[in-house]
Amino acid sequence: MTYCVGLRLDKGLVFMSDTRTNAGIDNVSVFRKMYRWVRPGDRVLTLLAAGNLATTQAVVGMLEEHSKAADERAPSILQMPSMFQTAKLIGETLKEVISDSAKNGPESEATFGASFILGGQIKGGATRLFQIYPEGNFIEATADTPFFQIGEHKYGKPILLRAYDPAMSFAEATKLLLLSFDSTLKANLSVGLPLDLQFYEDGSLKAGAEFRIDQNDPYYRAISDGWSDALKAAFASLPDFDRV
Amino acid sequence: MTYCVGLRLDKGLVFMSDTRTNAGIDNVSVFRKMYRWVRPGDRVLTLLAAGNLATTQAVVGMLEEHSKAADERAPSILQMPSMFQTAKLIGETLKEVISDSAKNGPESEATFGASFILGGQIKGGATRLFQIYPEGNFIEATADTPFFQIGEHKYGKPILLRAYDPAMSFAEATKLLLLSFDSTLKANLSVGLPLDLQFYEDGSLKAGAEFRIDQNDPYYRAISDGWSDALKAAFASLPDFDRV
Repeated sequence: MTYCVGLRLDKGLVFMSDTRTNAGIDNVSVFRKMYRWVRPGDRVLTLLAAGNLATTQAVVGMLEEHSKAADERAPSILQMPSMFQTAKLIGETLKEVISDSAKNGPESEATFGASFILGGQIKGGATRLFQIYPEGNFIEATADTPFFQIGEHKYGKPILLRAYDPAMSFAEATKLLLLSFDSTLKANLSVGLPLDLQFYEDGSLKAGAEFRIDQNDPYYRAISDGWSDALKAAFASLPDFDRV
Repeated sequence: MTYCVGLRLDKGLVFMSDTRTNAGIDNVSVFRKMYRWVRPGDRVLTLLAAGNLATTQAVVGMLEEHSKAADERAPSILQMPSMFQTAKLIGETLKEVISDSAKNGPESEATFGASFILGGQIKGGATRLFQIYPEGNFIEATADTPFFQIGEHKYGKPILLRAYDPAMSFAEATKLLLLSFDSTLKANLSVGLPLDLQFYEDGSLKAGAEFRIDQNDPYYRAISDGWSDALKAAFASLPDFDRV
């Protein structure tokens, strides 16, 4: 499993992803699930991947034209005229990879499915955030639903629903995402540290700051440990049931 | 779907269940999923049900001997010598109902699966809490894992993991369960109000208080509305990310 979130704020985009992949519960690895393509002044694209690792790596490989010699590559993902077209390209590539895997060779117990979150900006257009399905179609985040989660999304959703605010700073949004991830990490072994974190500032058209947060990260520790106490205090601040 | 929780406290047991059943998303009904059998001074048994409604109703019907005339019934569930044997009886009945449905008649898209939480006490024994699987086997809650959830358990789990304390009063435990249910209600349409709430005081061998909590219940409103503010205050009390 996996857990990835893309958050749309007034200030720009924030992305977080875990790094655990597993085939069964006794074959666990660390893989980065966050990709970025940057052409300063022209476009910044961030992609988060969940699902079958062979599928998501194949999609990224095709987007980067890994099948060509290194000096002949002109990745199509950097040449789309709009974010919409970029999402469409990724969706079509994903659909192609999945149907190629499914129709050839031996059947697999695992499915070849995968999904993506794509966020970024292309010069002349707005900063946009998409979720792309295994079928190749996609949806865009709006003011009503300003974030997307892929993978193991349930444990970490309540805090996002309650505490998200579009006017948040990147520093506050990081806190929110870490709490959402911490709830998930505590409940599901298939989501694991370290976490990747990335920002994109609306209108900047340059790569935002990027961090890897591991078990010993002092900020992560402060949030994870502090949340238990903060939550207990919040819990205590509400009235007890008065009819028993 | 469904959401039910059974909580083991020092003081006794607390149970909560929702009442929504659905076949697809456009066929929604209200059904009670909490059952109780009481013989004062001898035993108190509470059963929470999740899964196929025809299966769970059939199990309860068999436990109550609905196939016999009303004056000839001597429900076996009231005659087991121990909580362990009671859990075993329910598990065997469940297994029988599922395999009867599965082997006869037309196949169904839906599965016939179901699971239960059983809690209570029989004179001479301790207060115990079990989770019973569709396969008929079961596990018992211990100090390490003092609560069971069945149905849509993910959204409501983080708050249980963080705020549960075995020394809680019934009034505090009600607050905890309402928060867990409220997180689930906000995220999943297949879990719905009203909620059923029941207590069993350890050693009492009599029926504990019972409540039905609906949309307009003033305590539910206070908790649901208050939690957003309390959570935002808790969120604000933690430090923001300091590297961006």
